[in-house]
Amino acid sequence: MDDAHRVVAAYWAAAEARDWDTFAGLLAEQVVYEGPQTRERVRGRAAYLRFNAEGFPGEWHLTVQRIVGQGPHAASWIEMSEAGERYPGLCFFDLDADGKIARITDFWPGPCELPASRAHLVERY
Amino acid sequence: MDDAHRVVAAYWAAAEARDWDTFAGLLAEQVVYEGPQTRERVRGRAAYLRFNAEGFPGEWHLTVQRIVGQGPHAASWIEMSEAGERYPGLCFFDLDADGKIARITDFWPGPCELPASRAHLVERY
Repeated sequence: MDDAHRVVAAYWAAAEARDWDTFAGLLAEQVVYEGPQTRERVRGRAAYLRFNAEGFPGEWHLTVQRIVGQGPHAASWIEMSEAGERYPGLCFFDLDADGKIARITDFWPGPCELPASRAHLVERY
Repeated sequence: MDDAHRVVAAYWAAAEARDWDTFAGLLAEQVVYEGPQTRERVRGRAAYLRFNAEGFPGEWHLTVQRIVGQGPHAASWIEMSEAGERYPGLCFFDLDADGKIARITDFWPGPCELPASRAHLVERY
């Protein structure tokens, strides 16, 4: 088993470099991607490569804030920047027995209003 | 250093049980909580306990989907359920040298529309 932290670091480095060959080499043939917020799913390495290479054509750049790996599981928090905007992305990864990424679950939380019910319990930044 | 996975599992078990004494015992005195979506911040164990005990009075329940721990870092993905709704919560944790939770960054991604630009590249579920 490869180290999940190292695999996810390589995944994000390859995405940032648009190095789709290296990116593909990290994926299991039967990789499944899910985005629960939109309820979108992509199955298989070829479809997932196309999704990444064609689905996000903008001039985005990412920086890794945290990667945590344990056994076959990892999580990452990245900051994406595009057209002067910055927003966080959170991903959970499961690796297969060969150390390839077999499952990716991806979250992109947007800004939202602070509920009045807890406004007296926090500060703002 | 305590194991970060174990500490975060205990954190969520205590939250689900509303066992605020156990919850407090897992926190560093100078714990800092941040919610980047609302840009809210809470500093210190006493304020953070009050934030949790008073800020979320509903009949919520949580189930852990993933916890990943590595050294002093951990990430969790939980599903929260309340009033028939279910929604995911993602947290990143940093522990101090005593194994206490010193930093929590919390994300609650809501549902959103699938961009038309990648609709041909995914299936829906």
